[in-house]
Amino acid sequence: MEIDKYFSNRITVRKYSNKEVKDEDLKEMLQAASHAPNTGNMQLYSVVVTRDKDILAKLAPAHFNQPAFTGANVALTFCADINRFKKWCAQREAEPGFDNLQTLVAAMIDTSLFAQQFCTIAEMQGLGCCYLGTTTYNAQQIADVLNLPKGVVPITTLSLGYPDGEAVSSDRLPIESIMHRDVYHDYNASDIDGIYAEKEAREDNKQFVLDNGKKTLAQVFTDVRYTRANNEYFSETFKNFIKASGFEI
Amino acid sequence: MEIDKYFSNRITVRKYSNKEVKDEDLKEMLQAASHAPNTGNMQLYSVVVTRDKDILAKLAPAHFNQPAFTGANVALTFCADINRFKKWCAQREAEPGFDNLQTLVAAMIDTSLFAQQFCTIAEMQGLGCCYLGTTTYNAQQIADVLNLPKGVVPITTLSLGYPDGEAVSSDRLPIESIMHRDVYHDYNASDIDGIYAEKEAREDNKQFVLDNGKKTLAQVFTDVRYTRANNEYFSETFKNFIKASGFEI
Repeated sequence: MEIDKYFSNRITVRKYSNKEVKDEDLKEMLQAASHAPNTGNMQLYSVVVTRDKDILAKLAPAHFNQPAFTGANVALTFCADINRFKKWCAQREAEPGFDNLQTLVAAMIDTSLFAQQFCTIAEMQGLGCCYLGTTTYNAQQIADVLNLPKGVVPITTLSLGYPDGEAVSSDRLPIESIMHRDVYHDYNASDIDGIYAEKEAREDNKQFVLDNGKKTLAQVFTDVRYTRANNEYFSETFKNFIKASGFEI
Repeated sequence: MEIDKYFSNRITVRKYSNKEVKDEDLKEMLQAASHAPNTGNMQLYSVVVTRDKDILAKLAPAHFNQPAFTGANVALTFCADINRFKKWCAQREAEPGFDNLQTLVAAMIDTSLFAQQFCTIAEMQGLGCCYLGTTTYNAQQIADVLNLPKGVVPITTLSLGYPDGEAVSSDRLPIESIMHRDVYHDYNASDIDGIYAEKEAREDNKQFVLDNGKKTLAQVFTDVRYTRANNEYFSETFKNFIKASGFEI
């Protein structure tokens, strides 16, 4: 089996050159990406392609002004979207019952598949992109800037551009630790030690622990990067946004 | 710009030959797919690869015995997974606050990106696969069969195999109707008519409306395929499952 080397060697680009991404190319890549699988072929998603400098500047705080966002000339906000479908139904004597968790989850998954297909296509064309998880943190701010109507929920954002300089590839856990045979085989203490050993031994990760004044790498994730307080705060804001957008959850 | 023809020509396979998918190939494809982007490189997902005939038979009802499931020799259940990471934290003096909506949503997105990367790799190798949206409908049944511990939520399932015979490609909406420039431009009645015109004019869709005794294609979606009653029922079951799995949502 000869898997295209791109897949195992792919890297996330966070720094872009000034070379412009052509509008025609972007459209062609999105068109191709829209052939990704989706639920019932309803295509319950939209993508907002933002290039306007003023609008990008207004979006930046919602992404905490991360350089991976501010350094790009284009941002693609991928949204779960039941608005378009509902309007079609209204014009066709049909009454959709889509304002619920199940439809939102299906639309979120489909939006993610569409985004990932786009990411793969763009990277295979020599472009680079970076996912911004901040999208669900500050969904309301993003919706306000992008004029998202009810029923449209921002799920993830990709900044996009031609790479500037070298990016570093990330480690991944051994696949045996992620893949379970037939049923889930829960981990014992020694499994866990084995699974994370390589990650913990990396020099960059050791430095990361020191820089953050922590004892273990796990503590950097729980105490610095993804704290309970932040996770709970942003869970609340996202839940409020989803409800305001018209979904019963 | 020359995009690999695979992307626009891809088709969803729902019928498989008896040719076996080698375990070694599967592992290699999953390993490559795990290089898909993910939040903070925490890899909050697992995949359960089920080949055992008895276990597949027990899973089938959760997928409503769809031929796309029962006709495959392998099923991959992609799960959002905070269990492994929490165990690591427990062994490293770290206290994660991951039992909330925000972490679950991030893990769901990452699980979807991983699944889609696998789908692309598998299809590029000549295999076929089919997503089963039933995964979130019957999450509890699936969790019971697959021994999923708390903190592990099935998100989507791929049946996998070598294609048997010809599959038909699906239409997609014109990309202009999905892509918005700078901000979201809401649709007026004539936009909607234009967007769905081609889909409604297809002979197979016209037949589909007749076969279901409906007046419009939209009604097939709202009254037959994705009814309010079902959507609401399965929203409740999924919500209950998520809570039972330890998440505050």
